[in-house]
Amino acid sequence: MNREPLKIAVIGGGSSYTPELVEGVIKRYEEMPVKDLYLVDIEAGRHKLEITSALAKRMVEKSGLPIRIHATLDRREAIDGADFITTQLRVGLLDARAKDERIPLQYNCIGQETTGAGGFAKALRTVPVLLGIAKDIEELAPNAWMFNFTNPAGINTEAVLNYSKVKSIGLCNLPIGTQMQIAKLVGCDPYDVNLEWVGLNHLNWSSKILVNGVDVLPEVLSKAPSAKGLTMKNIPDFGWDAEFLESQGMLPCSYLRYFYMTDDMLAEELEAARTVGTRAQVVKQVEAELFELYKDPNLSMKPKQLEQRGGAYYSEAAMNLIHSIYTNRNDQQVVNVRNNGLLDFLPNDASIEANCVINAEGATPLQIKTPIPGHIRGLIQVVKAYETATVEAAVSGDYGLALQALTLHPLVTSAKVAKNILNDILTQHKEYLPQF
Amino acid sequence: MNREPLKIAVIGGGSSYTPELVEGVIKRYEEMPVKDLYLVDIEAGRHKLEITSALAKRMVEKSGLPIRIHATLDRREAIDGADFITTQLRVGLLDARAKDERIPLQYNCIGQETTGAGGFAKALRTVPVLLGIAKDIEELAPNAWMFNFTNPAGINTEAVLNYSKVKSIGLCNLPIGTQMQIAKLVGCDPYDVNLEWVGLNHLNWSSKILVNGVDVLPEVLSKAPSAKGLTMKNIPDFGWDAEFLESQGMLPCSYLRYFYMTDDMLAEELEAARTVGTRAQVVKQVEAELFELYKDPNLSMKPKQLEQRGGAYYSEAAMNLIHSIYTNRNDQQVVNVRNNGLLDFLPNDASIEANCVINAEGATPLQIKTPIPGHIRGLIQVVKAYETATVEAAVSGDYGLALQALTLHPLVTSAKVAKNILNDILTQHKEYLPQF
Amino acid sequence: MNREPLKIAVIGGGSSYTPELVEGVIKRYEEMPVKDLYLVDIEAGRHKLEITSALAKRMVEKSGLPIRIHATLDRREAIDGADFITTQLRVGLLDARAKDERIPLQYNCIGQETTGAGGFAKALRTVPVLLGIAKDIEELAPNAWMFNFTNPAGINTEAVLNYSKVKSIGLCNLPIGTQMQIAKLVGCDPYDVNLEWVGLNHLNWSSKILVNGVDVLPEVLSKAPSAKGLTMKNIPDFGWDAEFLESQGMLPCSYLRYFYMTDDMLAEELEAARTVGTRAQVVKQVEAELFELYKDPNLSMKPKQLEQRGGAYYSEAAMNLIHSIYTNRNDQQVVNVRNNGLLDFLPNDASIEANCVINAEGATPLQIKTPIPGHIRGLIQVVKAYETATVEAAVSGDYGLALQALTLHPLVTSAKVAKNILNDILTQHKEYLPQF
Amino acid sequence: MNREPLKIAVIGGGSSYTPELVEGVIKRYEEMPVKDLYLVDIEAGRHKLEITSALAKRMVEKSGLPIRIHATLDRREAIDGADFITTQLRVGLLDARAKDERIPLQYNCIGQETTGAGGFAKALRTVPVLLGIAKDIEELAPNAWMFNFTNPAGINTEAVLNYSKVKSIGLCNLPIGTQMQIAKLVGCDPYDVNLEWVGLNHLNWSSKILVNGVDVLPEVLSKAPSAKGLTMKNIPDFGWDAEFLESQGMLPCSYLRYFYMTDDMLAEELEAARTVGTRAQVVKQVEAELFELYKDPNLSMKPKQLEQRGGAYYSEAAMNLIHSIYTNRNDQQVVNVRNNGLLDFLPNDASIEANCVINAEGATPLQIKTPIPGHIRGLIQVVKAYETATVEAAVSGDYGLALQALTLHPLVTSAKVAKNILNDILTQHKEYLPQF
Repeated sequence: MNREPLKIAVIGGGSSYTPELVEGVIKRYEEMPVKDLYLVDIEAGRHKLEITSALAKRMVEKSGLPIRIHATLDRREAIDGADFITTQLRVGLLDARAKDERIPLQYNCIGQETTGAGGFAKALRTVPVLLGIAKDIEELAPNAWMFNFTNPAGINTEAVLNYSKVKSIGLCNLPIGTQMQIAKLVGCDPYDVNLEWVGLNHLNWSSKILVNGVDVLPEVLSKAPSAKGLTMKNIPDFGWDAEFLESQGMLPCSYLRYFYMTDDMLAEELEAARTVGTRAQVVKQVEAELFELYKDPNLSMKPKQLEQRGGAYYSEAAMNLIHSIYTNRNDQQVVNVRNNGLLDFLPNDASIEANCVINAEGATPLQIKTPIPGHIRGLIQVVKAYETATVEAAVSGDYGLALQALTLHPLVTSAKVAKNILNDILTQHKEYLPQF
Repeated sequence: MNREPLKIAVIGGGSSYTPELVEGVIKRYEEMPVKDLYLVDIEAGRHKLEITSALAKRMVEKSGLPIRIHATLDRREAIDGADFITTQLRVGLLDARAKDERIPLQYNCIGQETTGAGGFAKALRTVPVLLGIAKDIEELAPNAWMFNFTNPAGINTEAVLNYSKVKSIGLCNLPIGTQMQIAKLVGCDPYDVNLEWVGLNHLNWSSKILVNGVDVLPEVLSKAPSAKGLTMKNIPDFGWDAEFLESQGMLPCSYLRYFYMTDDMLAEELEAARTVGTRAQVVKQVEAELFELYKDPNLSMKPKQLEQRGGAYYSEAAMNLIHSIYTNRNDQQVVNVRNNGLLDFLPNDASIEANCVINAEGATPLQIKTPIPGHIRGLIQVVKAYETATVEAAVSGDYGLALQALTLHPLVTSAKVAKNILNDILTQHKEYLPQF
Repeated sequence: MNREPLKIAVIGGGSSYTPELVEGVIKRYEEMPVKDLYLVDIEAGRHKLEITSALAKRMVEKSGLPIRIHATLDRREAIDGADFITTQLRVGLLDARAKDERIPLQYNCIGQETTGAGGFAKALRTVPVLLGIAKDIEELAPNAWMFNFTNPAGINTEAVLNYSKVKSIGLCNLPIGTQMQIAKLVGCDPYDVNLEWVGLNHLNWSSKILVNGVDVLPEVLSKAPSAKGLTMKNIPDFGWDAEFLESQGMLPCSYLRYFYMTDDMLAEELEAARTVGTRAQVVKQVEAELFELYKDPNLSMKPKQLEQRGGAYYSEAAMNLIHSIYTNRNDQQVVNVRNNGLLDFLPNDASIEANCVINAEGATPLQIKTPIPGHIRGLIQVVKAYETATVEAAVSGDYGLALQALTLHPLVTSAKVAKNILNDILTQHKEYLPQF
Repeated sequence: MNREPLKIAVIGGGSSYTPELVEGVIKRYEEMPVKDLYLVDIEAGRHKLEITSALAKRMVEKSGLPIRIHATLDRREAIDGADFITTQLRVGLLDARAKDERIPLQYNCIGQETTGAGGFAKALRTVPVLLGIAKDIEELAPNAWMFNFTNPAGINTEAVLNYSKVKSIGLCNLPIGTQMQIAKLVGCDPYDVNLEWVGLNHLNWSSKILVNGVDVLPEVLSKAPSAKGLTMKNIPDFGWDAEFLESQGMLPCSYLRYFYMTDDMLAEELEAARTVGTRAQVVKQVEAELFELYKDPNLSMKPKQLEQRGGAYYSEAAMNLIHSIYTNRNDQQVVNVRNNGLLDFLPNDASIEANCVINAEGATPLQIKTPIPGHIRGLIQVVKAYETATVEAAVSGDYGLALQALTLHPLVTSAKVAKNILNDILTQHKEYLPQF
């Protein structure tokens, strides 16, 4: 780490998240001087890229800082010599997501785009693209860090960790979001809350909830069932059963509703699909409104409305990570890394989401001393086995592997249903799945 | 092992399996001279015990061997100084089984008495009884071997292995039954077939199918989908999907239909419950007919009809095991033992079903060199985590543990459904579940 | 942690290290207000305790802070309700150490008091005393932290971790000392140096040497052979062979000279024993001089000469640890903790020395991502096996276990020699080894 | 395995062991019909090959069996299409062995050719030759089995297992020899003795000593110290200390005298070197006498004198192994295989010596259920780490790796001594060590 002015490349720069990211670059400038910020997108995203880059330029101009904003469709130009590359892309855009969500619903299975069978479809499309980017980085910026916050982040991160040599870390906004929800629940400042996390991306538990060093987990477990707001924006706020929650022994993350309340969540998804549309359709509408705002030539800051979008704090998390690596800060963040024995019941090369110390060396996980009960371990193991099989299927394009992976998914009812869903995915996303 | 004449105690001696067991004792007499065979039952089984012991006495008389048959309701008398104790009991008899099978069906979950939620109910009732027997053995026959072939055998064996000091082994007729089905499929003698097994009781795969030392697994995987008869008598013979089976990479056992064909199996169970009755009701009828035969004072051999019963070869397997231990035979059998690292992705104290060398020391597992694919590993892990949590719940009587165990079961749809099933079990089996 | 004013008990308060500790308490007062500092010793140490406590009182008086110094021979009074208890004791005083060092030398084995066979003798005497203290803590201050910096710290810490319920951490001044030596070697501020440590107490390696986040390990490995001062005060400064050091791949700690330069170290010990006396005798002289200084009623600060003593920074390390726990500081320190899988080639319950994050929860190790070469792993494994066997022997008083432990020690030549040394230890230290 | 008549190639066919091997082929002919037996040697061994092959032909002729004996210097011709290849070679012949043994003695280190530093020298020379043979087998007989009984067998086997794709097994005569010694000690037939082995080649323990299924280990441990003859022919019969042996808890193999009686063994080696010569010189004399016998044109059987040679039963063990694989016999033998988790404290890819079931699939280890005490585990771990480092050094020719490997060896006193020995090895064996 040379502490020279930085070059950052954002793959998927036309994303609606971009203004948050630009804001993060500006406010950290003194400690972390970014010289070049490349926003990259593909031809299909050209229009959105024009809007976000124009807004980014206005934001920088207002700040008076010597940051150069570049908008480009040439990925390799952006990567060449970069220090940090972040990926926030969506192969096939929101239309593909809509299909991801609807196909499983036809067979009465959860469609959700990370933990549901929709996440399986998304992974098949996304893994090859990320590995292509990683290959470019190996060639053009071998010392760079690659951050992934494209969902399903656990699967995507594992693919990059095991099938490329790039230094990479996976990111999610769930940990920081949960920290804020807990702070609200117990009535304290979010910065006084430290959570110990156990598990995988979107399949994890808070095993300790420290407020100023004191563990308030039992208090949270008893308050949570009757509380509102203990969930991410994109997940229905069904309450936890009090007896169930207490006997879990740890606080399950929002997404665990898909596994523990499968029937209710499925009913909600089916109802939504029938009425307001799936989440993809809702997001499409939100994004359209955001881009209308972004277009305003008088706007030169991140609009408040962006915080209503599901991915709040994603870009903030990415900037925070860059900051700690660049300045060798040694603070703690929760990110996705190679397991390496941290969870001794998972393979070493599995990706997990863990509390890490962040410094110039990257992310170093902290040992988990809390005993993990068998009922939590078992669910983590089966989902991780599904995830790893999905990585292998996405990389190899092997139909049989894909079938076995999806059959193993706890939210897919049978091998027959898995086959139907898989066949629909291969047909409807044919253009994005050349490996099959 | 002193090679003195043997005392064997059969807990549940009033079972319809008993004649097969007596036949086994008689035919092995020369190498394994049994002096005393105790058939034990409880008051509720007195009538059946009278019938089976009378038949046993006629069988022995006909053989002309100096074997003494004892029928008793005093378990401790039977255990005192015994060399081998086998358990083939059913807490609550077939009426309890009928409830086990029907409760889950009310919530659209598989009720089957080992792999389904019915097996969970059965385990809660059975584990304390087996541990009571083990305690008697610790006191009255500390050097004896205890064999368990009461279902769910994996859970019951694990309970005895971890919560008593008795030397114990779990038994199942699936491996020998599969060996015979395979022999028929490939057209050879069953004794020329050697299967390498991977997994747990009723959740395992043949990872190698050796016929005279040559692995014919690929041939079997390609023939199996269109074959008939590749299943145990009590499991519907739904055919495997060819693409699915080939990509499994190993031959799944019959019971895996419950996990891979959940929808079809559930439909069949619901239909059966509505029409002919659940399996418990069918078995009740078969047993009634068998006992009518057994009563015949002219009958002095195992009637052929017994082989139609689901548990064929169970008693044969038990006798075979006793034989090999007693004679230090060093042959190979497939039994349930402590994992001890054989499957490195499971805890050491898990029970597993494995190929073992059998001699005076008991059962010693053979290392499994075949790589186990992730999609198989994941299913084994989640089911084992469920099983171990069930053991803990059955031993402790902790409601929360029981709820978590059943929620983790892959065939139970949600925490809410698990709670409903659990509550029904606790209510309907109240008299057999004093620990809760 | 209640952030109330603190009570600290120092077992072995008559030690010459005490003034450093008192200095540490005074200078941290604002962030960590100590109300009561108990200095405890045994009857044999009464005179030294009077001297150190009198000096401590003068130091506090000069500071003007409301810290109360208590000197007592009643250990239980000191422990009762304490927040932190540190142990810096020497069972049998320096005379016992002198025997520890001389017995092995008679058989041409290294006598050194931690890594040599002398450490074995010391462990047998010390473990029961520490477990007695731990028992008092369990009873009188169950929430207190116990810090051990009595050598052999690895063995002693492992004993307390595995044979008591007390929250405990082991401490050593080697890591901080090495950090300072490295800073001098590369010419930078000690605070800019971060070392990643791998191994056990007094048997560890710096696997990364980060100066402001940049790894300078290769530079250090090439400079070290010709450098002076890369050693602890009590270890002869024999230079490393350049080829050997480079192929080690990590920087061995000072004590590893005993394992890698056994012949030269033995020769030096034998020569010293013959001339100036063993280390115990040298220290005895140093201590006598220190206590002369401490007696001076005009002295009210830690005298500079204390830094010449081998254990420099020991008390500083202890105070630093208390500070971070009390203030939930989340900084990094190198301490001795339970392995829990951090080094996957050692048992979970082994004590290891590791980089940890320190906060109100105690010490949480950081994952070690650097691959550990086999030649280092093998030495760690055999020494750890010796250490654990020694703990078991010290606790049980089993002669056979003790014999096997000492025979396994890499610096003991044969079983016969081990037996001779063991017998001499049991005879010469009879009064301190009631467990045998 | 086709059960067709067999082709066997013996690399090092000019060895004095060959007549035993030929005898084994003849006596097993009915069950295992060998058609072609190739005896291969190098130019330097041409004369001995002529003698052994002529004797072999006379032996076959006398038997009247249609076995064809081929003597050749063309290794590839012998390997081409072979079913089994055994290696019994000595790179540099006995003269090199003499150097192996003498170099370490100059530095007061054990020279012994497997467990001593002499074994290190031998490994460096042998590993590349074995890998060359393995490469030929991969090309010319990819389905063949390769058996290695060249010392150090543990290191050599590990090299072939990890650096080639050949199916291979390592062999030693120690287990069968020990079985015979035990039979004599307890007064029974060798076939009634079953030993459970724990550890590595030449570094293992009998953890159970079953005579007809009854464990007589305690009896053996108490009788052994005063017994004579509990050792291999080539190892001095120093008695075990009774207290030491009992507290070992298992029966150490003969070679463990080098580790536990290092001082006495070293004294003996030094004395022998000064008087009768090292073992190599003694063997040279024995071999000269054997070859004189072999030359006798009237001799057509294995001469009795061969049994006096240290390697008795080596060839018998090899023939036994071939027999069991060829006939799918499923008996138990003790051989060297890949660890694969059997000893959970060693890496998976380590070679270990273990009780195995032998059939058409090769050797499958039996799980070890006996707990392994820490003092035994520690020694196994450090020696295995040395062995693996030696494999890596022998393959790579890396000087630093070789230095670290030898330094780690428990019988080498220091890094300086290791360096001296290594340098002497590299100089004196230069022609056989092109990789350095």
